[in-house]
Amino acid sequence: MSDIITVVAPVNIAVIKYWGKRDEDLILPLNDSVSGTLDTNIMCAKTSVCARPEFEEDEIWLNGKKESFSSPRIRNCLKEIKARASAEKCVSDDFLKWKVHVCSENNFPTAAGLASSAAGYACLVTALAKLYKVKSNVSSIARLGSGSACRSVYGGFVRWHAGKSADGSDSVATQIVDSTHWPEMRALILVVGDTKKKTSSTIGMKISTQTSELLKHRVKYCVPQRTEDIIEAIKNKDFPKFAEITMRDSNQFHAVCLDSYPPFVYMTEVSHLIIELIHKYNDLYGTKVAYTFDAGPNACLYLLENEVPKIISLIKHVFPSSNPDSFITGLQCNEEILNSQLTSIKPHAKDLIKYVIHTKVGEGPTEVLDGSHLLNDKGFPKM
Amino acid sequence: MSDIITVVAPVNIAVIKYWGKRDEDLILPLNDSVSGTLDTNIMCAKTSVCARPEFEEDEIWLNGKKESFSSPRIRNCLKEIKARASAEKCVSDDFLKWKVHVCSENNFPTAAGLASSAAGYACLVTALAKLYKVKSNVSSIARLGSGSACRSVYGGFVRWHAGKSADGSDSVATQIVDSTHWPEMRALILVVGDTKKKTSSTIGMKISTQTSELLKHRVKYCVPQRTEDIIEAIKNKDFPKFAEITMRDSNQFHAVCLDSYPPFVYMTEVSHLIIELIHKYNDLYGTKVAYTFDAGPNACLYLLENEVPKIISLIKHVFPSSNPDSFITGLQCNEEILNSQLTSIKPHAKDLIKYVIHTKVGEGPTEVLDGSHLLNDKGFPKM
Repeated sequence: MSDIITVVAPVNIAVIKYWGKRDEDLILPLNDSVSGTLDTNIMCAKTSVCARPEFEEDEIWLNGKKESFSSPRIRNCLKEIKARASAEKCVSDDFLKWKVHVCSENNFPTAAGLASSAAGYACLVTALAKLYKVKSNVSSIARLGSGSACRSVYGGFVRWHAGKSADGSDSVATQIVDSTHWPEMRALILVVGDTKKKTSSTIGMKISTQTSELLKHRVKYCVPQRTEDIIEAIKNKDFPKFAEITMRDSNQFHAVCLDSYPPFVYMTEVSHLIIELIHKYNDLYGTKVAYTFDAGPNACLYLLENEVPKIISLIKHVFPSSNPDSFITGLQCNEEILNSQLTSIKPHAKDLIKYVIHTKVGEGPTEVLDGSHLLNDKGFPKM
Repeated sequence: MSDIITVVAPVNIAVIKYWGKRDEDLILPLNDSVSGTLDTNIMCAKTSVCARPEFEEDEIWLNGKKESFSSPRIRNCLKEIKARASAEKCVSDDFLKWKVHVCSENNFPTAAGLASSAAGYACLVTALAKLYKVKSNVSSIARLGSGSACRSVYGGFVRWHAGKSADGSDSVATQIVDSTHWPEMRALILVVGDTKKKTSSTIGMKISTQTSELLKHRVKYCVPQRTEDIIEAIKNKDFPKFAEITMRDSNQFHAVCLDSYPPFVYMTEVSHLIIELIHKYNDLYGTKVAYTFDAGPNACLYLLENEVPKIISLIKHVFPSSNPDSFITGLQCNEEILNSQLTSIKPHAKDLIKYVIHTKVGEGPTEVLDGSHLLNDKGFPKM
């Protein structure tokens, strides 16, 4: 049996947004957040790790490129996992001294607001935990890599508790419901752009925390109530309530970005056209679809399975593509012939949406046991 | 002497924004606001009015087109002016019974976020007040036409007090300083679009008042402090402080629009490019320019006279025009050769800004005494 551990970990898309830190170094958030974890069969990070006596240094390859292992966030994750392993005494002291090789890749564009770092760090930390046989909960270690990574450690719907303690020990994720609770829940990722954003989340959060008066109000009054309400909506499978809170919270997060000084924006005019379309649809049929936008222009739509055919047909109609055959990726689905109310909506210019990923709420990180490691027998990247 | 009264009235551009009403019918705002009044020599509404026994009905022509006089806002203004005239007993009862003819035009595009209705109603109400010889303050009557019109009744910098009384009697404008107080103050209107907006101010304010949690916080905590601070900055001619509050308040107003449900946006990507450029400039030279955006994509830049040549040259460099000769309108000004720090800023595509209006803070409504009425001797539009 190989000594290489390989794990896949999911992306998560927040419905109550994380924006602003109470501690920069420990990555402790100002407020609780809630997310859905998306199926790793469609979008995932995949990471292989191994530790051997002959490795001369810790090395990491990300998306086919050798990167520096000296990034404090990566080092921190490794250090904390080793500290846990040492405390739990599950591996030998020698094994802990060996250098590690890490190879990781995402099957979707990075740094475009698609939560790539969340999946990446959840994957890294889960793989290292398995390598060093750590048994305890590692969500707080994933958090040290990228705040929202702690939510990708569980499947279903997940809450990240802001916590109160200065050392961050209570800033952990917990599962609200697992992926079987609301099996009809689907997500459509509408990829608008995959260029690197102007203001990174880290910088943006810092500016907002320092300058936005509205953020203070959001943290103190809006988020606590919304968090309770959306958890209740998820537990009761109350889609209209879930959807309205999701949309309002996405809008408020982007409002806070604009209230920051200097202001910054993540949504583009295409993002706003998507918002407009969803409100038009919901006005006609009741609240059947929710949009949410992270720190980028791409939309994530949450909707139930039976709405998918109509929404996909509508998106194809309103946002025509030059490559209709490869426009929808991910889960299979039928389309539906649109009624005249919907076909009367005027299509926009071609290719405003590049492609659509059709996926669903899924499980947390899982070990890959079929031998498809990213490292070869010598412990170096296969490609 | 003619019995026709002709008045020109200014546009005003708010630095503390009015957004949200506490009373829809009386147009009473949720919060105080502050604005600069802009020179009528450059941008103005012009209105001629007259009343004669032979007129068969009240008639109005706006920008060359006959419009209905049955609009409740126009009717309300006329009714209130007549009530005042009657109370002040300055004209005969017969004169009050005669029908009126009104002809009005703006010398700039309407309904594009350029405060056209403010100038228009300030002009109408001032002209009617002169026609009926009303002596008392008419800002509260202008307010009944279009909220911010009450600020266009004075020159210089003006505060509109939200007031507390249910009948609106204390919701009036007062002058903070007249137009001679800060004679170096200039304004550049960057006209990005002149198409009609998707969400009117009236509808937008209603949605925000009903749905935005951030608006509540803004009204209660942010605006009262900012209003005091910016009035102090204006009185002390403290430009950096004035500019920072102006920019933050514009950003917060647009943040509230985004926090509304459904959300709406007035700024476009070009608006955001302008914001980015001004922050870049201020980062280099200190806070020398302030941007502010009303319910539309056009920017208004406030800056001091000595900064104008460099900023105009910079705008011409970064936002190149196909018609450079007619790109800058309004007040004359020299340009300046840009240093390499500024020329190294990469120009955008052509014609993102259509044209620029260069103007300054100026006086309130004034009667036109040169006979250039918009109504002919018979009391009908000349054109």
